Amino acid sequence: MPELRRDLISHRWIITGTQSEEEFFSSLNLKPKEAGVECFFCEGNETKTLPEIYSIRKFDTRPNTPGWQVRVVPSKSAAFKIDGDVGKVGRGIYDMMNNIGAHELIIESPQHIKNICELPPEQILLILKVYQTRLRDLNNDERLRYALIFKNQRPESPLRYGHTHSQLAALPLTPKAVKDELISAKNYFSYKERCLFCDIIRQEQRDKKRIVEENFDYISFVPFATKFPFELSIMPKKHNADFRAESESSLKNLAQILKISLSKISAVLNDPPLNYILHTIPYMRPKPDYWKTIHNDFHWHIEIYPQISEITGFEWGSGYHIQPLLPEICTKLLLAK
Amino acid sequence: MPELRRDLISHRWIITGTQSEEEFFSSLNLKPKEAGVECFFCEGNETKTLPEIYSIRKFDTRPNTPGWQVRVVPSKSAAFKIDGDVGKVGRGIYDMMNNIGAHELIIESPQHIKNICELPPEQILLILKVYQTRLRDLNNDERLRYALIFKNQRPESPLRYGHTHSQLAALPLTPKAVKDELISAKNYFSYKERCLFCDIIRQEQRDKKRIVEENFDYISFVPFATKFPFELSIMPKKHNADFRAESESSLKNLAQILKISLSKISAVLNDPPLNYILHTIPYMRPKPDYWKTIHNDFHWHIEIYPQISEITGFEWGSGYHIQPLLPEICTKLLLAK
Repeated sequence: MPELRRDLISHRWIITGTQSEEEFFSSLNLKPKEAGVECFFCEGNETKTLPEIYSIRKFDTRPNTPGWQVRVVPSKSAAFKIDGDVGKVGRGIYDMMNNIGAHELIIESPQHIKNICELPPEQILLILKVYQTRLRDLNNDERLRYALIFKNQRPESPLRYGHTHSQLAALPLTPKAVKDELISAKNYFSYKERCLFCDIIRQEQRDKKRIVEENFDYISFVPFATKFPFELSIMPKKHNADFRAESESSLKNLAQILKISLSKISAVLNDPPLNYILHTIPYMRPKPDYWKTIHNDFHWHIEIYPQISEITGFEWGSGYHIQPLLPEICTKLLLAK
Repeated sequence: MPELRRDLISHRWIITGTQSEEEFFSSLNLKPKEAGVECFFCEGNETKTLPEIYSIRKFDTRPNTPGWQVRVVPSKSAAFKIDGDVGKVGRGIYDMMNNIGAHELIIESPQHIKNICELPPEQILLILKVYQTRLRDLNNDERLRYALIFKNQRPESPLRYGHTHSQLAALPLTPKAVKDELISAKNYFSYKERCLFCDIIRQEQRDKKRIVEENFDYISFVPFATKFPFELSIMPKKHNADFRAESESSLKNLAQILKISLSKISAVLNDPPLNYILHTIPYMRPKPDYWKTIHNDFHWHIEIYPQISEITGFEWGSGYHIQPLLPEICTKLLLAK
């Protein structure tokens, strides 16, 4: 009986009730398992996951058998369920709704590779195409408002969670972090009549202090104000709000810059745990007017967050971050790798 | 040369440059030290910290000698510096300012106690009074806009960081997390002409499903939508925006409910790492008009965050949280302890 509940003070929605008391406490006590235990994500173990939603596989192979290159399966511990209606209700002064949505795992390699940057660019290109395909497909579900692609890379993790994969969470609402960016971009555009992200790219190209890698289509840089040490942003240099609209030739350059960016972080921090997220436009329902300028004012991007520092009471209490190392020093160290 | 920098997309300020490259990498590699090494926070080691700013101590003892009960010292790795001016400047399209402010450590016991809930209520009362004293004193500095009190309790941590203490960060701006709450409370008040927090307390008293402890002056409950499992909020039942205005008799009841709340969390989760934060009103500079209704619409409170789950790409990318255990189940388990 998972639920979406809204916090009245912060206006954040919370997904809760995804585990029972027993499941919660047994997951707390999970110890790294022995190396001998099978990885459900490896080729040959297709029947150990839920049936696949989509895959890129050899012409003559059947779903849920070996022969795939990228494979998408539903998460077993789904925070969201694909069936039912949104069902917004009040409970006293509080708001809640059903946890309608999709939670998919994108398995990025048939081999037990732990870090996406070890994959060849051609394989990373396939992964990026799968992102596009899944984002397009879920757009057909009228109940959904946003699909967030994210990666929790935990090279230290035993087995399954160590096998390189991304996740997709499709939600019945546009999440706060995205909404905040949309509003910020819209405000900037209405004031300057320029895209905020394009202006940032131009500033970075002028400053030349925080760029880590650049190719024909993309720029990878340490933002001027980062939450985490060695954080990177990757943005298309040509203005585009919608990740789904990137061409194959552009995705090739994205695969290349993503691989280089992640390799540099791995080299500086010795293969740290990291997250990345992809922020593209929402599905633009149900208020077409509200989204009128979105193709001008928003700009899709990827943010990469190495997770080497603890979040403390200061961060939770202030909403600010202490990032000890100047972004220019982070850039210098990344460039040296 | 630490700096405050503003992220143009999220509008968050970031404190950066607090460590050199060498300091950063050596702190990354810090291993738990041997148990024999001295704790700088213990009685007898007063000269190992920076000179004290304030203390509650025996009548006939001198500063920076034994004989204290609660002691406040500046942080050595201060993210903020007390000297200089705010110095807001632009750098291209970006904004930055000097890291003016104060970063103080409130050492909560002369003994090497690791969990504040092990202290007697009388000692916790002294700590709360020190919070008030420091908040009042820093109000005299016209450059400061907010003082945030927070605790990072890490019972597993070796030595110093294991010795029970809180921190105070006084900033030249009102942090985003507080501003968001102020705006939310103001909007609610202008719509309902009632305090949002008072309404939440009434709802909790009606629902009777999430209250963990209640006394004459305070209520401690698991919020309807929590970020973390076993998160608790403590609020004064009588409307009050300003923590500094609480009387000694009220603080006695706060000490009692804080001790019980933290003890219950420790019992359920086996002394987990946790943070708590205290959100009271800002110093209300420089726009008196803006703050006109704050005493009616805001309500000070403490939020307690057990830190047992990892923050993932989903949380960073969405601004939402997945909290697996229903708040009502958390309440039931806390009540049973």
